[in-house]
Amino acid sequence: MTTMTTRTVEYPADGLTMIGHLALPAGVDRRPAVLLGPEGPGLSDVERRRADALAERGYVALAFDIHGGRYLGAPDEMLARCLPLLAAPERMRGIGHAALDVLRAEPRTDPDRIAAVGYGTGGAIALELGRDGVDLRAIGTVNGLTTGRPGDTERIRCPVWAGVGSEDPIMSPTQRDAFTAEMQAAGVDWRLVVYGGALHAFHHPPVDHRTVPGVGYHPQHARRAWHDVIDLLTECLPVTE
Amino acid sequence: MTTMTTRTVEYPADGLTMIGHLALPAGVDRRPAVLLGPEGPGLSDVERRRADALAERGYVALAFDIHGGRYLGAPDEMLARCLPLLAAPERMRGIGHAALDVLRAEPRTDPDRIAAVGYGTGGAIALELGRDGVDLRAIGTVNGLTTGRPGDTERIRCPVWAGVGSEDPIMSPTQRDAFTAEMQAAGVDWRLVVYGGALHAFHHPPVDHRTVPGVGYHPQHARRAWHDVIDLLTECLPVTE
Repeated sequence: MTTMTTRTVEYPADGLTMIGHLALPAGVDRRPAVLLGPEGPGLSDVERRRADALAERGYVALAFDIHGGRYLGAPDEMLARCLPLLAAPERMRGIGHAALDVLRAEPRTDPDRIAAVGYGTGGAIALELGRDGVDLRAIGTVNGLTTGRPGDTERIRCPVWAGVGSEDPIMSPTQRDAFTAEMQAAGVDWRLVVYGGALHAFHHPPVDHRTVPGVGYHPQHARRAWHDVIDLLTECLPVTE
Repeated sequence: MTTMTTRTVEYPADGLTMIGHLALPAGVDRRPAVLLGPEGPGLSDVERRRADALAERGYVALAFDIHGGRYLGAPDEMLARCLPLLAAPERMRGIGHAALDVLRAEPRTDPDRIAAVGYGTGGAIALELGRDGVDLRAIGTVNGLTTGRPGDTERIRCPVWAGVGSEDPIMSPTQRDAFTAEMQAAGVDWRLVVYGGALHAFHHPPVDHRTVPGVGYHPQHARRAWHDVIDLLTECLPVTE
């Protein structure tokens, strides 16, 4: 019987104090590690429990914060913060690097074996770390099918797995095509899963009772997308090498 | 140590004598069963070994024949037979039903638990069985992203998983979009995986030394596509229920 442990970590990034959730597998040895980035509203128990689940599988996992400890459930507030952030690769990279530094500083982390997985804005941050040349073993992104600055995507050296809902009005077919065309032109090893009928944030159980147009939970595809993320890690970042 | 066994099965379909490859898991009990359809050139050892691999996992598996025992390695001969076949749903269904009858007649098969997986033309046949209202547990199709006659796809009642190479010139983005739009309009539970950089028949190791434009083996995505097929079966057709 293994027991993972968790710890709240505070660290500065983007002019804020970020409050992340670090989950450690049982044992004392170094382990591969996963950065886990949240959807635009920010870190919630959904991502914290996913980090816990990764720790139970043997990974060090940091569910990182993007809004200084706040969860922006109101769409207008979320958009007011996320749209400028998504337009500023250096800010996204700053948030990603700060989380990466926390993860690398953890003695249980094998600093040479790190993957980045994110959802929405968190996925865009995972991609930007790759575009910044960070040596990652894999990048997984759900909903966040963002394109980069010219020449940056060529710096991604690990497999990229992406997932998106077919009916997601926020990540449109045009944007999906731009994303995959960029990955292909850059010579990246990429895959895209389109989940039929799923809306934006289909993987995310409701956190509050708001209804946001184009957003909706799809439990079946949510399970599949998590399974696909685990498969990506199993392929690219096995717990034992 | 389990040992699966295999048997060659002959049966009539499409005016020909088909020569299929039936693989049986160790034991004597009834098991879920999988129809496995080949790419346009026809049944080869690639599909026979996949049927064997499914039997080793506990499934009864029939790698079925589409050309009366022949392997059409010459593209012109393959196209001369496959293009009319792909335009004739009733002929495809006839080939599929004949194979299904063989599979159901096998005493080891649980006739209520059958999935159909196919590649290219074999995938189109799997889809046509679903469009004919056959009670399948899952349909998997790689490369064969064919559309059906109006109203037929509404008869598919099981999950559909599809895979395609992003650079496949034979299964174009336009055809992929038509396929997914039809699945979505019909209310099917569907998924599509686009394997970045892969050509047509990317999953298929070369059978002879011919080079066909737009066709090419991609070992890494081939492994992933097989893994994805196994995941589909694990989800929809578990060996033990």
